[in-house]
Amino acid sequence: MVTSTEKIFSEFKEHSVAEFFKKNQQMLGFSGKTRSLTTVVHEYVTNSLDACEEAGILPEVTISIAELDKDSGKYRVISEDNGPGIPEKHLGKALGMMLAGTKFHRYAQQRGQQGIGASGCTMYAQITTGKPVKVVSRYDSKRITCEITIDLKSNSPKIMNLVKEDGQFGSGLRVEAEIADAKFDKSSFGVYEYIRRTALANPHLQITLNDPEGQKSSFPRSSGKIPDKPFVVQPHPMGLSTNDLIDFAHREKECRRISSFLQERFARVSAAKVDELRALVPDLDFDKKPSELAWHESEKLIKAIQNPAIKWIAPTTDSVKPIGREQIEKSLKNILAPEFVVVTERSPKIFKGGIPFMVEAALAYGGGAGKKNGDMTGSEVIRYANRAPLLFDNSGCAITEAVKEIDWKRYKLKNFEEEPISVFVNLSSVYVPYTSAGKQAISNDEEILAEIKNAIMEAARDLQRYLSGINREHDRKERKKAILRYVNQLSKDLPDLAGKGKTAEIEKMLVHLIETKYSGQIEDGEDEAENGNGKVPEEEEIDE
Amino acid sequence: MVTSTEKIFSEFKEHSVAEFFKKNQQMLGFSGKTRSLTTVVHEYVTNSLDACEEAGILPEVTISIAELDKDSGKYRVISEDNGPGIPEKHLGKALGMMLAGTKFHRYAQQRGQQGIGASGCTMYAQITTGKPVKVVSRYDSKRITCEITIDLKSNSPKIMNLVKEDGQFGSGLRVEAEIADAKFDKSSFGVYEYIRRTALANPHLQITLNDPEGQKSSFPRSSGKIPDKPFVVQPHPMGLSTNDLIDFAHREKECRRISSFLQERFARVSAAKVDELRALVPDLDFDKKPSELAWHESEKLIKAIQNPAIKWIAPTTDSVKPIGREQIEKSLKNILAPEFVVVTERSPKIFKGGIPFMVEAALAYGGGAGKKNGDMTGSEVIRYANRAPLLFDNSGCAITEAVKEIDWKRYKLKNFEEEPISVFVNLSSVYVPYTSAGKQAISNDEEILAEIKNAIMEAARDLQRYLSGINREHDRKERKKAILRYVNQLSKDLPDLAGKGKTAEIEKMLVHLIETKYSGQIEDGEDEAENGNGKVPEEEEIDE
Repeated sequence: MVTSTEKIFSEFKEHSVAEFFKKNQQMLGFSGKTRSLTTVVHEYVTNSLDACEEAGILPEVTISIAELDKDSGKYRVISEDNGPGIPEKHLGKALGMMLAGTKFHRYAQQRGQQGIGASGCTMYAQITTGKPVKVVSRYDSKRITCEITIDLKSNSPKIMNLVKEDGQFGSGLRVEAEIADAKFDKSSFGVYEYIRRTALANPHLQITLNDPEGQKSSFPRSSGKIPDKPFVVQPHPMGLSTNDLIDFAHREKECRRISSFLQERFARVSAAKVDELRALVPDLDFDKKPSELAWHESEKLIKAIQNPAIKWIAPTTDSVKPIGREQIEKSLKNILAPEFVVVTERSPKIFKGGIPFMVEAALAYGGGAGKKNGDMTGSEVIRYANRAPLLFDNSGCAITEAVKEIDWKRYKLKNFEEEPISVFVNLSSVYVPYTSAGKQAISNDEEILAEIKNAIMEAARDLQRYLSGINREHDRKERKKAILRYVNQLSKDLPDLAGKGKTAEIEKMLVHLIETKYSGQIEDGEDEAENGNGKVPEEEEIDE
Repeated sequence: MVTSTEKIFSEFKEHSVAEFFKKNQQMLGFSGKTRSLTTVVHEYVTNSLDACEEAGILPEVTISIAELDKDSGKYRVISEDNGPGIPEKHLGKALGMMLAGTKFHRYAQQRGQQGIGASGCTMYAQITTGKPVKVVSRYDSKRITCEITIDLKSNSPKIMNLVKEDGQFGSGLRVEAEIADAKFDKSSFGVYEYIRRTALANPHLQITLNDPEGQKSSFPRSSGKIPDKPFVVQPHPMGLSTNDLIDFAHREKECRRISSFLQERFARVSAAKVDELRALVPDLDFDKKPSELAWHESEKLIKAIQNPAIKWIAPTTDSVKPIGREQIEKSLKNILAPEFVVVTERSPKIFKGGIPFMVEAALAYGGGAGKKNGDMTGSEVIRYANRAPLLFDNSGCAITEAVKEIDWKRYKLKNFEEEPISVFVNLSSVYVPYTSAGKQAISNDEEILAEIKNAIMEAARDLQRYLSGINREHDRKERKKAILRYVNQLSKDLPDLAGKGKTAEIEKMLVHLIETKYSGQIEDGEDEAENGNGKVPEEEEIDE
């Protein structure tokens, strides 16, 4: 019976990562017509922003979308930026090869991380319309025009019709992709919403959408400040696993000793700290080559690093590049025009012991805030990771979870779902733990979840104060109105009862009395009494 | 300024798929300690079952888990089966190379699909404990013993300490992996639950768990019937995309004409059907080589195939291998010992026009059904795809969504969450649209969602009938009890009122009257009246 073993294995084959993602397009965000179109725009905009910031250029991006035949589901997407462009020799890999890029091993905060995005779009174009993407790359004053597809079997780029021109072409990238199985709509998962949210979190970006319906939507920049360049930071020892340390050690080419390797390659490792480690791992030869570090030695070193006896200075948080309170406020006012805005500015925190991250949270209330649904306005949660909007997979995201876990009633929001409120959260980190390759949700890491909650609650306390003010004002007006209703009758009755005075006169006096009572500053004691449940919510913050 | 372009790209690198999944372990299910351990067991059990079924062997699997040091989070997992084993030349690829396997391009129903699982476990062992996996493969009476790791940079296997023995070793595979960052627990995400659910859906499997607490749990097989071998089916033209057709055509080596290629390679394509296609695509030369088929021609062919003028015979559904009503019933009774079980047996359906699938649904109520939570019992949803349990990512799964969308009150379940009910659903298909590489959730495809709902509702109608019976019985008993309470008093009062008769005598008569009324068969009319909302729910099924 088991002689068939060879037969079973006769079909054994290897496959390329491009074939894998062709078969599992949904993992890259190509699932559903609306989402597929948004994914293409997302990948191109993300790459443009990363490239501009790295080159120190204030980004200008234009996305133009046209439906090729009415109701065909076929669209042409053109993305144009004023970034640095891509040199000829990297064009193929950047747009026609998966898992190739500058960002994979780098320890710096960027939107893109995996080197899949733009090549994924090339694949999607190719398997839905059979068309290559058309590229115009201007860099160092040269201009390259070409067409690119991926050879899916080998995950390698095919470049066609390449034209190279020298001249004064400035810099920038233009990519044109034709895709099918797509749909443009104005839903909260659509391209328009994606671009609106991108503009919200990137006040230095000038972005324009030319949509298939012929409408042009421009989001002008509200800030001329180029975000600081992302830079590569040294990892902190507390964030290392045994395997990470082995990887770094075996890749090491310059340092000849484990002791110098530790000091040179990791943050906060001084000679004194190495001595402390020596004392904790006496049987390890710190003078041998890093490449000779064995697993069990790395394991002991990591244990020693995590020993509470060693007091590490926390990692530098310079690598974390937030948007900034002022910028967020400007942006929210600019785009949402809300009645009230509050932005929290918290210090960076560390997760897994060595990875710095920072949460920015803002609440916009009333006015244009919240989600319009016909005549009604309800709450909306606007999620970002490194300033890139997260539109999909909201139920699995730490930000959604944090919003859900907050007891909004304590902050004067009776029914959160039905309040005109936008909750804005941006997580910045060199390493964002996404739940999938589609990069649409942040996984529920405890430390991250707690910090997101704290950031939102901090903002919510300010909102509560504002809403208490409104409530007081509202209550006061209502009471005044009620009393004034009786004034007229009272004015008529009083003269009769008292036997003297004139109605008009008494009415005037009464109105004056009421105006004084209900329109002026109210004293503290009264405030307290009026404000019913005026107590500030207990602090739920976790001590750091 | 833009002279830095070259510098920006100086770090441009390519990465292997193994490096990608090392960085994104969560995509393979390695996130969280409990889940990581369950994932390892899942991958090994899945492979054992697929291999046994393919070789026509009744599977016997033993999983042994030991914690290496108390509270270290380090575990040794040993998986042993009586399958066909793996030949020497395939061992490395099967366990030490990602995206290599027999199942990737195959159009047959199997649990594994992607050729990542077991190699993913090797990677996880290696990056958490630095240890290779130890393998003993017995096949065709030979025995190979070796150790395997993955070279992550190149995604290629490294085989160490290989010993090959000839003799009478029978067949089977034993894999031993040491992993860290893991946890054994008895939660609904743990190994025990995983194995229990696997046993539920695979009555032909004999599986034993030796857990770290020293407990041995055996799930004996309840059926000696080996499931039919999965077999490769021809794709149906209605399920093809333009790109699929191009792929098949350009890979074609035997058929020399497009006409014969269409007939030979796809299901339900007769010579007459080719003639119909010819008429619809007059400018395509059906006599040219398949390898010469151009994109625009493929596009026209696909349009013609989907033209309603052509009546296709539906694809054969032989490829779909369900568990079977009898087997599910046996299994649920065996393991859950519920008060009531109902299993629906529906015919296979087609999604995306050409991919056959089948949904089996069962409801178990009362007794051991439902999820115990302290003293309380609540509802549970037991999800499967091709008989493999789906424990994680339940919120994003079509099965969870279907259960949520059903109005359970219509089926006599007042508060679904708190009812002692297990909802069992298995989706069988040659192609299961998973939401991620972790293969834990089925994506919300409309056709699939609708069929899952219909299958569950069909079962729910039977449950409703059963529960109505219980309710009637309950109501009757309550009413009888209430009336009997008055009998005694009435018996005393009646003689006084009427002036004759004896209390004891009257009481006896009354009790007899009541017993007759409330214990016997109830006539139909009364039944209707008692049953309050006795109407059968409207059919929500979608016409096929």
